[in-house]
Amino acid sequence: MNQLFIVFAALGSVSALVFAVFMARRALSFSEGNDRMKKIASFIRDGANAYLRRQYSVVIVFFGFMFVILCVMAALKLLTWFVPFAFVTGGFFSGLSGFVGMKIATASNARTANACQTSLNSGLKVAFSAGTVMGFTVVGLGLLDITGWYLLLRYVFRLPLDEITAAMLTFGMGASSMALFARVGGGIFTKAADVGADLVGKVEAGIPEDDPRNPAAIADNVGDNVGDVAGMGADLYESYVGSLISSCSLGVIAFNRIADVEGIRAFAVPLLIAAIGVLASIIGSLMVRTGESTDQITLLKALRRGTNTSALIIAVAAFPVVWFMLGSSHMGLYAAILAGLLSGVLIGRCTEYYTSDTYKPTQHLAATSETGTATLVIDGLSLGMRSTLMPVLIVSACILLSYFLSGLGLTDGARNAMGLYGIALAAVGMLSTLGITLATDAYGPVADNAGGIAQMAGLDPVVRERTDALDSLGNTTAATGKGFAIGSAALTALALIASYVEKIKSIAPTMTMDMSVMNPVVLVGIFTGACLAFIFAAITMGSIGRAAHSVVLEVRRQFREIKGIMDGTEDADYTRCVDLCTKASLKEMVLPTIIAVIAPVAGGLLLGPAGVVGMLCGATASGFLLAVFMSNSGGSWDNAKKYIESDHFGGRGSENDKAAIVGDTIGDPFKDTSGPSINILIKLLSMVSIVFATLVVQYHLFG
Amino acid sequence: MNQLFIVFAALGSVSALVFAVFMARRALSFSEGNDRMKKIASFIRDGANAYLRRQYSVVIVFFGFMFVILCVMAALKLLTWFVPFAFVTGGFFSGLSGFVGMKIATASNARTANACQTSLNSGLKVAFSAGTVMGFTVVGLGLLDITGWYLLLRYVFRLPLDEITAAMLTFGMGASSMALFARVGGGIFTKAADVGADLVGKVEAGIPEDDPRNPAAIADNVGDNVGDVAGMGADLYESYVGSLISSCSLGVIAFNRIADVEGIRAFAVPLLIAAIGVLASIIGSLMVRTGESTDQITLLKALRRGTNTSALIIAVAAFPVVWFMLGSSHMGLYAAILAGLLSGVLIGRCTEYYTSDTYKPTQHLAATSETGTATLVIDGLSLGMRSTLMPVLIVSACILLSYFLSGLGLTDGARNAMGLYGIALAAVGMLSTLGITLATDAYGPVADNAGGIAQMAGLDPVVRERTDALDSLGNTTAATGKGFAIGSAALTALALIASYVEKIKSIAPTMTMDMSVMNPVVLVGIFTGACLAFIFAAITMGSIGRAAHSVVLEVRRQFREIKGIMDGTEDADYTRCVDLCTKASLKEMVLPTIIAVIAPVAGGLLLGPAGVVGMLCGATASGFLLAVFMSNSGGSWDNAKKYIESDHFGGRGSENDKAAIVGDTIGDPFKDTSGPSINILIKLLSMVSIVFATLVVQYHLFG
Repeated sequence: MNQLFIVFAALGSVSALVFAVFMARRALSFSEGNDRMKKIASFIRDGANAYLRRQYSVVIVFFGFMFVILCVMAALKLLTWFVPFAFVTGGFFSGLSGFVGMKIATASNARTANACQTSLNSGLKVAFSAGTVMGFTVVGLGLLDITGWYLLLRYVFRLPLDEITAAMLTFGMGASSMALFARVGGGIFTKAADVGADLVGKVEAGIPEDDPRNPAAIADNVGDNVGDVAGMGADLYESYVGSLISSCSLGVIAFNRIADVEGIRAFAVPLLIAAIGVLASIIGSLMVRTGESTDQITLLKALRRGTNTSALIIAVAAFPVVWFMLGSSHMGLYAAILAGLLSGVLIGRCTEYYTSDTYKPTQHLAATSETGTATLVIDGLSLGMRSTLMPVLIVSACILLSYFLSGLGLTDGARNAMGLYGIALAAVGMLSTLGITLATDAYGPVADNAGGIAQMAGLDPVVRERTDALDSLGNTTAATGKGFAIGSAALTALALIASYVEKIKSIAPTMTMDMSVMNPVVLVGIFTGACLAFIFAAITMGSIGRAAHSVVLEVRRQFREIKGIMDGTEDADYTRCVDLCTKASLKEMVLPTIIAVIAPVAGGLLLGPAGVVGMLCGATASGFLLAVFMSNSGGSWDNAKKYIESDHFGGRGSENDKAAIVGDTIGDPFKDTSGPSINILIKLLSMVSIVFATLVVQYHLFG
Repeated sequence: MNQLFIVFAALGSVSALVFAVFMARRALSFSEGNDRMKKIASFIRDGANAYLRRQYSVVIVFFGFMFVILCVMAALKLLTWFVPFAFVTGGFFSGLSGFVGMKIATASNARTANACQTSLNSGLKVAFSAGTVMGFTVVGLGLLDITGWYLLLRYVFRLPLDEITAAMLTFGMGASSMALFARVGGGIFTKAADVGADLVGKVEAGIPEDDPRNPAAIADNVGDNVGDVAGMGADLYESYVGSLISSCSLGVIAFNRIADVEGIRAFAVPLLIAAIGVLASIIGSLMVRTGESTDQITLLKALRRGTNTSALIIAVAAFPVVWFMLGSSHMGLYAAILAGLLSGVLIGRCTEYYTSDTYKPTQHLAATSETGTATLVIDGLSLGMRSTLMPVLIVSACILLSYFLSGLGLTDGARNAMGLYGIALAAVGMLSTLGITLATDAYGPVADNAGGIAQMAGLDPVVRERTDALDSLGNTTAATGKGFAIGSAALTALALIASYVEKIKSIAPTMTMDMSVMNPVVLVGIFTGACLAFIFAAITMGSIGRAAHSVVLEVRRQFREIKGIMDGTEDADYTRCVDLCTKASLKEMVLPTIIAVIAPVAGGLLLGPAGVVGMLCGATASGFLLAVFMSNSGGSWDNAKKYIESDHFGGRGSENDKAAIVGDTIGDPFKDTSGPSINILIKLLSMVSIVFATLVVQYHLFG
């Protein structure tokens, strides 16, 4: 009877994948439009495919190398033999999530543009269907990986439950490394192209965005797909799987400790919540439709109806799940799930408040353009830093509530274990609606691409208006999506840190681990961990700077050497720009990933397990802050520019607009590369620490 | 016999003050030059005096208010009655340090310009004498405050030693609050004036820096004095006193615990090191002189000779002090002092590497101006974040070495207490040469002002060349000074956190304080504390944005309305700009200070003492990183601009130069306001926590 849950989880996985196929067929049933549109779309598709192919060929080398290392460690009995294989499946599914998302996105961009020729509602249907495919692929593959391994370990290898969770905890590392490659590589690609296109095209040559004369225009559109779609897919796959396995593992520990309910039920709860989340998201997705108004509010309502319905279903359905599975004395865990669900929404709203031009902060930021670029940049940085306050308070409240409510009535060790399970469940609650939140997030780049194609194919301006309406809405929902991504990253990272501590306890039950912040190795761990996030942001920004520099020089060269570009008599050499971005981003994505893998191992060998815990906490805290800061500064600069260009403070082409374009360009790497990559970094660090735990316990200098 | 140390400390204090008077007389013996120079100098002096007068009138309200609160708390037995009075003396001496520094600086600027008419060596003599006055005033007053209170508590109130240290620990809060006011207020003033002067004068109107036609020119020079001089004086006074009292207190605890040497000797060691530091600094200062070469290297060697000699004297003299006072088994503490001394130097070198245009990072930053403002800003931010790595590793190594070497041979509790004393002594070691390092730092603004006066008074270009040589060198030594300020802030903050923990133990010996990072209140404390540093940086940057905005509008108005400014027939209205900066900065400086005082108390009432410890650690780690990041980004942009303007990448007036000026303007609040203020913030938070410890122990919600 208690094993039935795995059937539900498997059903959830299958439903998600079937629904994804169904939505993909719906999106593909639309026409791609005229030949010019098809040609542009194929340019974008080819560029994106070529990029991903080469990205995977680099990634495979890394995975092969790590596989060998993990095998050696398994041979030395520092790991079980499942880990190297689980590492590879995690990476494979994470990459597959991104790949499927990218495939459907590049197949739907021209279809969306073409559908917008008919009506806004058709356009929304195509774009949203494409986003849905991505959302449900991520969720479906995530559940598939977990249920598959569970079945294998339980019924083929016949492991006991605690060994299953211990093994599964190490699975996340593959997914996280792949996610980091995808996010960093894709992020560098998209921003190098974007910065290059904007700086030379818009600022120097004075041609509009997405103008076919801009040699970097296609690269820019390719970038949206490989960065915003494939990168985000891999990223959220990793969050989803990480939150599930850490909560399964912490649940087993918590319930084994109080020993009044079987651990298997605690293992089941997160998976059941996730399975319910799939159904809730399907129902929600089916509710998204709109009329012909291009009014933001109406469109937003259409999407919000879907996400709110899904959230409501989960909030209601989680109650009986917790009640029947864990008993009425553990309803604090239900409260934790609710706290997580609510925190995600609230952080999203804060992001929206700070970055949308319907609110004061961004309007005020736009106003600072009156005194030039410098004041606009200073104010934007200040805005981003200021905007960290509310998310920190929300996450803090969520941690305290889910910890203390979950542990209510228990004492000491049992309370602590249950509290940590509560925090992990909060992350699961936040990510339970991932199917639909990711759908509303991923449709944005499709609409963005559709606008580009409409522009380049010279379609009727009303089409661009419609795609712009969709795209602009996409920015708002992306803000909400970012709230979820960042909030869940923090909670998942904490759950993973807690899992790490339990792992150490299970490896060395007699070792006393002094995790007091007054222990200097913990303190030094906090310092160095916090520094890691800064270094990581620095490296990714530096990479974009270098990559963009090469694009700028190339675009300038083409304008100079290909005489006919400006009057439209000669085609720009799009492929070279795509190629340049590909090479640059692949070269640059390796170092950050290697640092993320080596740092916690090196830190552990030096500072010992307690030092690693400090390091992970430091990285999580400073990473969370940097991610919020950078995302919000970037988002606000972007929208301040749009605000100015919609006839405020001098409007398009004014000196103020020029200042705002510089601000937007600075914000690009902030919000689309460095910020989101840090989300992955903080989880990858924990994952790596868990995998290398035995090594660190056996060999370390201090602590 | 054991009480003799206080005589030495008192002698150190008196020697420092006497030497300061001697140097002041030397500086004042030079002539102020012609009438025009005198007039300009008096403008600057009047502006600075007016600013300080009004700043103190705001500060007095705050101190009065806090005094009443502390008296109420004393009446409720939450504090001893010494605290309110000690609070006031700390604030008074900190303010006095800044005041004296500012007085001598504004008296020496015209004298330096005039002396530069004779020779570079004369100029250096005047400027360096002025800096020396400031350095030794800070050190002398710091030792005076501590020895005075010690004598009072020991011989008048006859308190036992542990109560003396407990009382003295609370003294720092007054000095820290005053320092924060001075740094934030002065920092906002100087950068609002600077940004305003640069943006309108240099960029819009195209007139050179320090041009008398610029209405904000005087305000800019006033700013150098109230920000860089008075602010820095109050800042370092607070570091100095904080490091001494925390190490005295931790020393008594450590030695009482192993009980083999009297605690009084452990109390004495930091004060003796400080007293020796005074003598070493005097010897070092007397060695600073140069020939007629304006070559940077020669000048730098002249200053380095002074600082290196002082450091060497201390390194040698600290050995017998530790040996005879604490016994040969505690030579690990001597190693801690050396580690601190060395770390300060190394962090300074890192700062120099990242910010000086003689090294690759800044040269590369200058090169990014080729692709415009956006890439220059991105690269500068990346550089600053990257530059955090080495300082973090140096401070970490210093923490680990001083902790473990000091505790060598001891076990458990005793080892921990001795280790923390070691960390505190490392801070004392780093700050022991403060007299001379501050002198080499504080002479920069004097030379900078002298250059301004030379320009405005129309002196021979050779004078400006000489003052520029002095000023440019000042930037390098300022980098070293910043290294000391930031490094010592981190170590002192850690020592204060340790003191806080001891304080809690002494208040509630039976309370178990779980400071594990897996305790959610500690974790939430780390998150919120880390966030505080971001919020603080955000607020100060926002303040500068607002203040600069008003200056920009006023300067534009004057250029528009006072027709004769540009051709020199009419004088600009300097006073209005000074007045505007004064008002704006006084208005803006209150909120950050209030936040710094309220946050740890509110955090404590909510999260309990363990939560406060988490909060302080989080704030120290993220504050340290932000301070390094912001200082170095700012410093590098500044020097990249100077590099371009000395005929690289297009030179002065080129498009690249314009981009670099924007970068420099963004960097101004980074390096001169937000960054340095964070140094004070992290110590003030600990100080406030210590003062309100009893309240928090008695009343708190979680934890």
